[in-house]
Amino acid sequence: MEKINTSIITIGDELLIGQVVDTNSAWMAQELNKIGVWVNRRIAVGDVWNDIWNALDETAKWSNIILITGGLGPTADDITKSLLAEYFGGKLVMHEPTLEHVTYLFEYVFKRPMPLLDRNRRQAEVPDVCTVLKNEIGTAPAMLFERDKKIFISMPGVPHEMKSIMKAQVLPLLQRRFQLPHIAHRTLLTAGVGESFLAEKIQDFESDLPSHIKLAYLPNYGMVRLRLTATGEKKIVEQELDKQFPQLKLLVNEFLVTDEDISMEVVVGKLLKEKNKTLATAESCTGGYIAHLITSIPGSSNYFKGSVVSYDNSIKEDVLKVQEQTLQTVGAVSEQTVTEMLQGVLKMIKTDYAIAVSGIMGPDGGTEEKPVGTVWIAVGSRERIETKKLHFRFERLRNIELTAINALNLLRSFVLQES
Amino acid sequence: MEKINTSIITIGDELLIGQVVDTNSAWMAQELNKIGVWVNRRIAVGDVWNDIWNALDETAKWSNIILITGGLGPTADDITKSLLAEYFGGKLVMHEPTLEHVTYLFEYVFKRPMPLLDRNRRQAEVPDVCTVLKNEIGTAPAMLFERDKKIFISMPGVPHEMKSIMKAQVLPLLQRRFQLPHIAHRTLLTAGVGESFLAEKIQDFESDLPSHIKLAYLPNYGMVRLRLTATGEKKIVEQELDKQFPQLKLLVNEFLVTDEDISMEVVVGKLLKEKNKTLATAESCTGGYIAHLITSIPGSSNYFKGSVVSYDNSIKEDVLKVQEQTLQTVGAVSEQTVTEMLQGVLKMIKTDYAIAVSGIMGPDGGTEEKPVGTVWIAVGSRERIETKKLHFRFERLRNIELTAINALNLLRSFVLQES
Repeated sequence: MEKINTSIITIGDELLIGQVVDTNSAWMAQELNKIGVWVNRRIAVGDVWNDIWNALDETAKWSNIILITGGLGPTADDITKSLLAEYFGGKLVMHEPTLEHVTYLFEYVFKRPMPLLDRNRRQAEVPDVCTVLKNEIGTAPAMLFERDKKIFISMPGVPHEMKSIMKAQVLPLLQRRFQLPHIAHRTLLTAGVGESFLAEKIQDFESDLPSHIKLAYLPNYGMVRLRLTATGEKKIVEQELDKQFPQLKLLVNEFLVTDEDISMEVVVGKLLKEKNKTLATAESCTGGYIAHLITSIPGSSNYFKGSVVSYDNSIKEDVLKVQEQTLQTVGAVSEQTVTEMLQGVLKMIKTDYAIAVSGIMGPDGGTEEKPVGTVWIAVGSRERIETKKLHFRFERLRNIELTAINALNLLRSFVLQES
Repeated sequence: MEKINTSIITIGDELLIGQVVDTNSAWMAQELNKIGVWVNRRIAVGDVWNDIWNALDETAKWSNIILITGGLGPTADDITKSLLAEYFGGKLVMHEPTLEHVTYLFEYVFKRPMPLLDRNRRQAEVPDVCTVLKNEIGTAPAMLFERDKKIFISMPGVPHEMKSIMKAQVLPLLQRRFQLPHIAHRTLLTAGVGESFLAEKIQDFESDLPSHIKLAYLPNYGMVRLRLTATGEKKIVEQELDKQFPQLKLLVNEFLVTDEDISMEVVVGKLLKEKNKTLATAESCTGGYIAHLITSIPGSSNYFKGSVVSYDNSIKEDVLKVQEQTLQTVGAVSEQTVTEMLQGVLKMIKTDYAIAVSGIMGPDGGTEEKPVGTVWIAVGSRERIETKKLHFRFERLRNIELTAINALNLLRSFVLQES
């Protein structure tokens, strides 16, 4: 099997001045992995002629697959297409099928009442040395160049356009052109234990692993994901991982959240669906983020009914029926308040389970007794309630995220305890 | 002024298999920009000896500032520290002040009951050819290497640790070491107009710009941000931008959302605060995401009171008092339903304004009459209500995001119309 080296080049000043977070590369890498393409390197450069040119030159030295995104827009700062024409020794020519497609999009999909602008027409120009890969949902087509058995594919940077082109054109093309190995992963998620402590527990397992199986620790949101990766012939690597993975699971069993590569909100959703139970949330400090996480999953309407975001104390009192006395004596961030919020939301939104949270996310609002990062969580049903106090030390958004993930995990254990 | 070239190298398999989106680089680039450092290139490589080594070699050829993050954890997959020791011709030695700091963190901050593990002690080892930069909030210190007047700084990849080290150590150090130019940006946000149409409107302005001022188009969420960037001597570039930016604003005035580089939720928050008005939301299809966006901003409790996430129709009826007949005749995704949701939430959560949304986010739930992506939005007060129907063509999460941003923008125009 020939050695395949792959690079992703992303083009755009916005990536270099930090105005935009590059989510494209992560998605591309994931999809490439699934078909057996390991991404060796990702490079981001600005809309700068020499920087793009040099990135292509350096990358071409050792990669045989070079995927390029961005810099194909209709405006003057987008120079990628002219550069690629020059780089591959061609010139820009009108590509009639693309022009028809652009005209169609403006007329029937974007429904723009105005005639096609010159700059929109120019979207249909391509270097005469490329093969055009159609962009079904956008105006800038993708372009395939070949040189010295290396493949260069330039795609627009708009995420949904790039994704559509990758799925319909690029991934199948790579599968046809290259003999790809099989890359297999097994991932599990743990909670309530640090990376170092996990590493101690599994160090014998880790040192006994054959050299072509890699173990990675991926800490996030106070949880740690462990991932085994093996590359090679499909049947063999799958068999090996099927042997190794159960051992790993056993070693970390007491901290195991899931043995699938899924997020906490998916884990909780699956559990509720499986048990045919429903959920509601009463959120103060998370401001709807828990409800958002849950409802970001398709099909969540099967188990999630709704939420009351009681950001202001008046809503805690008027809507969730938290007692005035509770708020006055122990305050909004207290075990008693989240308990009453939970009871209130269960009564209002008649679900089997509920989550209630209240805390101080910062940067302001902390006191000596209740510093920024103090959180109370309650989870439970009409019959039983469990509460937990947590303390986070991070910035606002991360405190919100950590509160949400911990609340979902507390609910998960609660539901599992129910017979 | 010497020419400064800067690269960021991020290390970690998780970045290359797409399990983690790299938010560090964007943040770093932003902060570097503020002190006049333009990032020329970002490279991401895996936890692979040769790939890291080659990235260092290539980058060192033409950069004088090389910032490295990741690969410094306590587990076996983290090889960056050993590699840096070898790369710079040193060996790992125990750094006593760091060991004291690690011991302190475990005892008093993480409050781990167990004795320090060997692998935690090894976090305090550093190459004897580096200068240690203290990591106040984590165990892995940052390390400064110098060679041929080039600066290499290796930092942990944990975002809040990296940020703390950048702010406390790296940025001041770069300001001391290099004579940095001034990079100035002016950014405005438009809504309701496409990139091509904007480009037509401002093409004379664009072609008249002096060559050292760059104009960038940054489309996102159906809005377009326009950014002017100038680099040079502070007084001069600020003056030039202060002359050019008002002209640009004037040209796009009818589509202008804000002339600051802030997000829609911040724009709306500022407006409400300025007018001393309060807001609530009633969310069906967005599942709490609008409330989350608003409450992700510090100080939002001044104007945001709460939300009812009426994901299930029973909540629309029982809590928001949408009439059963409405749901039965015109359905949950209709002008009448969002109007009644709005009236319901205004009555419940006594605010000046409210937002109500209902739609079909996909992938399931669409019908011929109401396909996936159909959304109704209502914004208003007790006196006046405005509604809008929208149709998005994307995947679930993006449909949710677009609905939220459009709802906030509709509220913004509504509030501006009120005298």
